[in-house]
Amino acid sequence: MNDFTFYSPTKFVFGRGYVDRTGAELKSCGFSKVLLAYGQGSVVRSGVLARVRESLEAAGVSYVEKGGVRPNPEVEWVREAIALARAEQVDGVLAVGGGSVIDAAKATAFGVPYDGDVWDIFDKRAAIGGCLPIAVVLTIPAAGSEGSGSCVISNDAENRKVGTSGDVFRPRLAVMDPELTFTLPAYQTVAGVTDMIAHICERYFSGVGAVPVTDNIATGLVNALMEATPRVLENPEDYDARATIMWAGMLAHNDVAGCGRSLNPATRAGGWESHGLEHEVSAHHPEVTHGAGLAVVMPAWMRYVWREDPQRFLDFAEAVFGIEPVDDEFAPREEAVEDAVTTAIDELQAFFRDSGMPATLADFGLTPDDVDPMLATLEKNKGKTFGAFKTLDMDDARAIYESCF
Amino acid sequence: MNDFTFYSPTKFVFGRGYVDRTGAELKSCGFSKVLLAYGQGSVVRSGVLARVRESLEAAGVSYVEKGGVRPNPEVEWVREAIALARAEQVDGVLAVGGGSVIDAAKATAFGVPYDGDVWDIFDKRAAIGGCLPIAVVLTIPAAGSEGSGSCVISNDAENRKVGTSGDVFRPRLAVMDPELTFTLPAYQTVAGVTDMIAHICERYFSGVGAVPVTDNIATGLVNALMEATPRVLENPEDYDARATIMWAGMLAHNDVAGCGRSLNPATRAGGWESHGLEHEVSAHHPEVTHGAGLAVVMPAWMRYVWREDPQRFLDFAEAVFGIEPVDDEFAPREEAVEDAVTTAIDELQAFFRDSGMPATLADFGLTPDDVDPMLATLEKNKGKTFGAFKTLDMDDARAIYESCF
Repeated sequence: MNDFTFYSPTKFVFGRGYVDRTGAELKSCGFSKVLLAYGQGSVVRSGVLARVRESLEAAGVSYVEKGGVRPNPEVEWVREAIALARAEQVDGVLAVGGGSVIDAAKATAFGVPYDGDVWDIFDKRAAIGGCLPIAVVLTIPAAGSEGSGSCVISNDAENRKVGTSGDVFRPRLAVMDPELTFTLPAYQTVAGVTDMIAHICERYFSGVGAVPVTDNIATGLVNALMEATPRVLENPEDYDARATIMWAGMLAHNDVAGCGRSLNPATRAGGWESHGLEHEVSAHHPEVTHGAGLAVVMPAWMRYVWREDPQRFLDFAEAVFGIEPVDDEFAPREEAVEDAVTTAIDELQAFFRDSGMPATLADFGLTPDDVDPMLATLEKNKGKTFGAFKTLDMDDARAIYESCF
Repeated sequence: MNDFTFYSPTKFVFGRGYVDRTGAELKSCGFSKVLLAYGQGSVVRSGVLARVRESLEAAGVSYVEKGGVRPNPEVEWVREAIALARAEQVDGVLAVGGGSVIDAAKATAFGVPYDGDVWDIFDKRAAIGGCLPIAVVLTIPAAGSEGSGSCVISNDAENRKVGTSGDVFRPRLAVMDPELTFTLPAYQTVAGVTDMIAHICERYFSGVGAVPVTDNIATGLVNALMEATPRVLENPEDYDARATIMWAGMLAHNDVAGCGRSLNPATRAGGWESHGLEHEVSAHHPEVTHGAGLAVVMPAWMRYVWREDPQRFLDFAEAVFGIEPVDDEFAPREEAVEDAVTTAIDELQAFFRDSGMPATLADFGLTPDDVDPMLATLEKNKGKTFGAFKTLDMDDARAIYESCF
């Protein structure tokens, strides 16, 4: 068990109809005037925004609104939000939405007390100083941003998408009402689940051996997600299954599933290889949903790297799928191990596919000709080599991408 | 999945030799002068206190010391500590020790800003207002107080021992250095593990059906503890096993293993039946270690109540011991269920016994004549009936106690 810091100071209030408590909870956490951030209108159409406004008014929490956060939130929106937050002298930022809205709210919150341009922080030319407190009403479980210290913002002018991390901008409050997700389409739901499983697996396959207390949490979350997903596909209003997905999505990324698994105690566990590889797919092909891209790339990465530490994959195979190597006196042990590991990866990919995710990059309309441009930006973003479970160079990355067709 | 609030705002810094970081971590959390609380001298003898002092001095954190917290910490110590903290104008309380020291530090921290006598709060005649920030250097993993919102204090003059709870006094910082526990005797180590498993089971058998995302965490923690315990008994300096026990002990009681399992979202999950029953044993017989008492009382409680919801116990039996009911066409299903459940309870009790815990109240030197006095105070403390999994009256409690001989 390697050294670590774990700090998840968010107050999570979780339950049926809890969106109507937003104002009272904000009040009790000390918010008095917030910038209310939201996306491109789904929270208007669903009536969620109206309920949030009503609860803020009932609790006497003032607010000023700024909608229009897009998927892959852009720094220009953040700059405008910072200006508005300063002009209106808000004392906090409230995000109503999913990961994109939350990340835009986070960047706004730490941008307000910073004197220069907020992009300096993403560009590593400035450190985060202060940060306004952040609250969230979660409507799309996937990214885990409601509990995480992660924030990813795009800069169209520079054609970049950059993440930053820090405990200082973990949300102060997250209101989680699973009923808000009843109307989430199946594809988006499963893409979210895939992202959660990837958040868990990036930490599980982190280049560190077994850490049973953390690993049992990790595989327990995967099992709960795999049990809940078909129930939601069968009945989108299955409250318990929706609640499982919403809560597991937070736990998948607040780092409780990574404690003791980091090679460096100052950084999060995992090399985030699948996320890095997928990033280029959806960056070059914006029609690819991040989670759907992961459903293709992550199993391919697993098939490519498992020999680096077969035992880690055997642990996963047994804990998630109950698969163990079959001892056969006439066959070498290596065959039994390979069979067990590849069967487990097959099962994981079958789960994604059976839940509606694509299985190949061709399913998105990509061809092998699309690989070179992805490799070019991958090298820019991750360097010549990357990875914690197994060090990968660009030839390895090419082989993984090509195996996705 | 029932409604819940989850708030665990403690910063946990966990690793080898981390006790020497105490000062720097306190500084970074904003502490500048602390009341340093400790117990009856083991941290002096082990050198831990000297290391803490040195790190405080190196970081420029001032401190004033008050030792002498006893097991079952007493309110008079807390009153003296409050007076000292006020006179010295500290801005925080640092506990170096286990659950007793931490609880005494918590009571001091919320006693300082309260105008009246701190016992008023335990007596429910006053609510907690403010609270000084609390930091912990954990030396005995068991009670989970380093991450919990629980605090139990005794009042010898009134012959009472009362708990209070609140998120406001969850520690701000917990320094967790598993090497500090290398010298913990086997009996105390296993009593601690038993307490942890009880914290998990009180929540698991809470009167609420399956909540897979939470239940998988709960049974994953139990499995990790049961795997680590024999390794520590074999080699007290097995770092990974010590680390597993230390971290699992926090997770067992910071409520992550209870989310969605509470019958009332305003209160913690579980009826705490085993804790209530054990409380009387160690209150009347102070030589009984709390965890050792639980090793006897909890399996007895389980045997008495499991028929109230056999499925809950089957879930536990399968997840922890891999035990499933054996289908037999010639025997009724009920027999297979009973066999599976009682085998699992037997296995749990065997784990406690094989690890050095007692199996009966007679092992502590108690006789059936000791039951009546325990029942008298049990009724005072828990009321005529209590319990969440199954409502118990004093006749039930008598039957459970008598089954412990």
